[in-house]
This record gives sequence, C-alpha cells and structure tokens, in this order.
Amino acid sequence: MEETIKGSQSLIFKNAPYLISAASVTGSKEAEGPLGKLFDMTSEDDLFGAQTWEEAESTMQKEACVLALGKVHVEPAAVRYLFGGDLLRQGIATSMGVEGLQIPMFGLYGACSTSGEALALAAMSAAAGYGEYMLAVTSSHFGSAEKEFRFPLGYANQRPLSAHWTVTGSGAFLVRSAERAAQDCHVRISGVTVGKIVDYGLKDSQNMGACMAPAAMDTIVRNFEDMGRTEQDYDRIITGDLGYVGQSILFDLVRGKGYDIRERHLDCGMTIFDQQTQDTHAGGSGCGCAAVTLASFVLPKIEKGEWKRVLFVPTGALMSTVSFNEGASVPGIAHGIVLEHC
Amino acid sequence: MEETIKGSQSLIFKNAPYLISAASVTGSKEAEGPLGKLFDMTSEDDLFGAQTWEEAESTMQKEACVLALGKVHVEPAAVRYLFGGDLLRQGIATSMGVEGLQIPMFGLYGACSTSGEALALAAMSAAAGYGEYMLAVTSSHFGSAEKEFRFPLGYANQRPLSAHWTVTGSGAFLVRSAERAAQDCHVRISGVTVGKIVDYGLKDSQNMGACMAPAAMDTIVRNFEDMGRTEQDYDRIITGDLGYVGQSILFDLVRGKGYDIRERHLDCGMTIFDQQTQDTHAGGSGCGCAAVTLASFVLPKIEKGEWKRVLFVPTGALMSTVSFNEGASVPGIAHGIVLEHC
Repeated sequence: MEETIKGSQSLIFKNAPYLISAASVTGSKEAEGPLGKLFDMTSEDDLFGAQTWEEAESTMQKEACVLALGKVHVEPAAVRYLFGGDLLRQGIATSMGVEGLQIPMFGLYGACSTSGEALALAAMSAAAGYGEYMLAVTSSHFGSAEKEFRFPLGYANQRPLSAHWTVTGSGAFLVRSAERAAQDCHVRISGVTVGKIVDYGLKDSQNMGACMAPAAMDTIVRNFEDMGRTEQDYDRIITGDLGYVGQSILFDLVRGKGYDIRERHLDCGMTIFDQQTQDTHAGGSGCGCAAVTLASFVLPKIEKGEWKRVLFVPTGALMSTVSFNEGASVPGIAHGIVLEHC
Repeated sequence: MEETIKGSQSLIFKNAPYLISAASVTGSKEAEGPLGKLFDMTSEDDLFGAQTWEEAESTMQKEACVLALGKVHVEPAAVRYLFGGDLLRQGIATSMGVEGLQIPMFGLYGACSTSGEALALAAMSAAAGYGEYMLAVTSSHFGSAEKEFRFPLGYANQRPLSAHWTVTGSGAFLVRSAERAAQDCHVRISGVTVGKIVDYGLKDSQNMGACMAPAAMDTIVRNFEDMGRTEQDYDRIITGDLGYVGQSILFDLVRGKGYDIRERHLDCGMTIFDQQTQDTHAGGSGCGCAAVTLASFVLPKIEKGEWKRVLFVPTGALMSTVSFNEGASVPGIAHGIVLEHC
C-alpha cells in the first residue's frame, strides 16, 4: 500500500472510505444562528436536562452518535472503533458521553482540531481494513469551556473582541470501509494531511485565531505540495474556527507561499454565528464548531455534488490554563481532510 | 486485509511491525527503585532544569523521543507520525514536549492507558503501510500530577494507603513497518485489543486500582476470546498500574471468567517502586509508569527471548477533578498490546 503515501505528511487512500452518516446536536444560541435550521437536534435548554455543563456536553455527544448511527440503521455493536475528544481536562465529556455505547475507543486531544484528528484516524483505520464501521465524534459546550479556560459563567467576565464564542454542539460521523460500499452515499474521504505543531510564539489565549492561523497555513500548503495541488483543485477550503482575525492572517500567510485561497475559503467559526446580531466577537470556536458545521452545512453540499472536492481543516490552539498562566506560548495544530463527491 | 480482524475488539497484524527502539527517562525516586539501573536517563533534579513541573515533564518527553530515535540513528524527519499523550489538562506536556521534533502528530488521552493507546495506533499505522517509522510517547510527573489532580506539593496533603504514587517518567517507542525489517530487532507487535470503557460505579479517585481492575479484566478476557487463547499462551500478562489493591481485584474478576493469571501476572506499578522502603502505598501510576517499565524492564526480556509472548495492558482511570467533584463515577479503560519475540 506504499502508494498511499504522499509527500511528508499526507496519505491518499487507494480504497477511500465513505463518510456515510453525520449528525449534529447544538444548543440554543447555535439554533438561532444562520445554520439553525440545518442541525439535527437543538435544545432550548443548554443543560440538555442534565445537572452540570459537563454532563450536558456528554449528553450531546451521546445523542450525536446515536443519531449518526440511527440515520443509517447501524447498531453500536457493529462499530469497530470510536475516535472521540473534547476540550475539557482529561477529555471527560467524551469518556462519560460515549461510555454507554460500549464501542472500543481511542480518546483524542487536538484542541479544536480534534474533529479532523478523529476523522483522519477513522478513515485510516477503515481504509486499512481494520473494520467496516468507524465512528468519529467531538464536542464543546460554552458553559463547560468558559469554566475550563476562563471563569464559571456566573463571574460574567468580559471578553475582548478577538475572543471566540465556544460553540455548544457535538458532531458525529460514521465512516464505512470502501469494501462494502454504501449505495446512497456520495461522500468519500480520499486523503488526509496530518498536522505538525506550529508555534509563532504568540501568547494571547484570547486571540486564538492568530495563534492557529500559522498552523492552518502550514497544513493547507503542505496538502497542496504533498498532493501536487493548488487552491484551484478544491471547491472550498474550510478551516475550523480561525474567525475574522485568524482568517485575514491566514490569507496573508498563504499568499506569502504563493497561493491565494480568498475566493474559496470558508471558516466554520464565521459561518455558524451571525457576528452582527449574535455578539460572538471573532466567531465560533470549540471542538463542536467545525464538527456541527461539517455535519449540517458542508457534507450535504458535497453529497449533492454542489462541491466536488473540499479540504476540511479544523484548527486547534494547544494550551491549558496552567500553560497560559506559566507564560508558555500558544502553538497551533491543524489536520486536513480531503472530502470528495463520488 | 480482512483476516487481521479477530473477534470484536482485536486485530492480528499480517505484517506485524517491529518495535525497534525504546527509551526511558525518569526522576530521582524512580532511579532509587528496583528498576533504577535499567533506565536510560535519570535526573537528580526532578525539574530537569526547567522552571515548572509541566516544563519538566515536557523535557522528559523530548529526551525520551530523542533517545529512542538516537539509539537506532533515525532522524525525526524520517518519522511519519507521532502518537503521544500525558495526564495533564489539554495534554499540554505532550504538545510542548514534542513540538521541537516537528513530526506530524496525533494527541491522545487515555489516562494511564495512553501508552497502550499510542502503541496500538502506531502499530496499526505501520502495519497499514502508512509510513516506515511511527513514534509513540507518553509521560507523567509526580509534581504536575499532584497539582492537576490533588493539590500543589507545597500543601503536603495526606494520602490514603489505596492511593498511588505518580511516576515521574517518560517512555518513547519507535515502531517500524515490517516491509523494511530491522536486522537486530527481535520484538514485534503482533496484535492489539482496543479497550472499551468499563464502569462498575466506583467513585473513589484515591483508589484507582479498584476503578481500573474491571477494565483490565475486560480487555484481558476479550483478548483471550478474540484470539482463541488462554493465560497459557502468554509468558507474562503485564498491567499498567493496578497496584496491590487493583491486582487482587483483577485476580478475582478474571477467575470469575474461568481464567487464572496469578502465576503470569506482573503490574508495572508494583514493579517500579519498592513499596516497603519507598512509601509508595498502592504502587506507581501515571502514563509514564507502564511506559518506562516496558521500555527498561519488559522489552529487553522479550528482545533476549526470555519471554516469547507478552500481553501488555496499560490501564487508565477516566476522571478529572471536575467530574470527581461533581460526583461522577470513575470508569476505567485498558488497551492490550501483544508483544512477541521473533
């Protein structure tokens, strides 16, 4: 299978697996946003009937998995491996969320890039023939993220304009190996570009778009060079949550490498909220942001053939409150997933 | 490659990759323990020259990776993907530790089972032909773990006898695909059993052995049944950090399933410290515990052929201080790695 290796960081799958089902579950603010009508499930109660924000996030993950499986009538027991993660310390939203499914699981952490990491590993495992079905799931919750990274919501701390609004949402994706092709599925994961940690020395955790933009550039340009492509080869290049600040930095950095992605770029963090009316500052963020935007808005367009080939690049800022308070920089990471209409 | 799938959770590799190099880096207490002379690098200064426990842990990870690569003269640029994790919130020790190597990376979280998770994914990627070299690394640090899960060391809080002592250490493992077999290497990763989350409802974070024992039993028995084996087929069955409390529970649980592993069992947490003289209570723990014990003590015995086949089962307790304080239970997870002399 040597020919699947491309360049230094990318794989192109000989037997590209199918992305046969996806589901999105979000909170109330996301339901009021531009994509509100596209989500599979939204809750007026951001606690989702639970007692804590963490339990609420776990509930979203479980519901997203059950929905993604239910849409194509696949039982959890048929899923070989689950790849999941979230933003909380020790990935607790995932552990508690997927526990009930009883699928052998790999816990992941890639900050807001985790949906890309999970999709990459699910696709790699399916393409290698390690099982028929693989499940990828990620989540974030505004309440649990504010508590984890800033303060409990009750403190009502102020946010600079460069700050992001963590998306309350979870997206789940069911990947099926190509050996048993899905009749009604028109989306394949044809390749991946696994990201490196990129550190420009920025230290402002309230400006994550700037921290992540260099990593997004690095992965996008690496994808072009590994696969012998340019921006012309993609209908859309979709980053996770760079927001308004990060997007302009990304455009400059990519232009410095000789490419111009402005006409084909879309950022999930800028798509999920209406900045003007929803007071979300730089845009949405969180493991759930890219995941629910992909599930609800991007995949249907690829499924229909409106977009033939998309480079999906969720981006993550690698930090903790401890590293931040100790004065460490905030490096970024981004993973590229090539999605194609078939 | 369908025939690599065994049972519901296990894979047996047709082209079993080699584990060609391993390195261990530990702190001073580990250096004074029974395995002290076997570690590649130990430091009298548990800060490893850094300013914080977190930076010290990152330094250990970096040193372990550099040592594992250096032993077989492989450059970081030759490594296709890195799989790494630690116990800290947002896996920050790994992000900061491996950043300088500039290897495309997957961040993982599986609590103290992470070394198994990383080895499983490294072996799966190498066996699938996704690259020649894959690197797996995990770490823990007593100082950073006490701060993360209990209190900063200066508080000098008391510990019950069922508590573990977090190992200050990092282990790194270089996996090479079988297509380019290593001449002087006699250890192969012949298969894996990926664990499920197992929750018996225990809530005592100071008794992690009891929390993890059910998961260890589940993965060991699943490995036996998936692969059509019994305890007789392994020279040793080696758990990560069940300790004295967890071991006795494991023996009972496994016996309840019709197997008796008492004569073949070894626990890294009980091996790395001398409980009598080092005041380590139930035993060592942490992502580094199983990793450095594997690298320094277990692998040389397989390499020499003293042990022909070993089932390595690092165990993790899935919790955070938030989940604990909110009253959630502490489920466990364990991943099984089959190591064979060749």
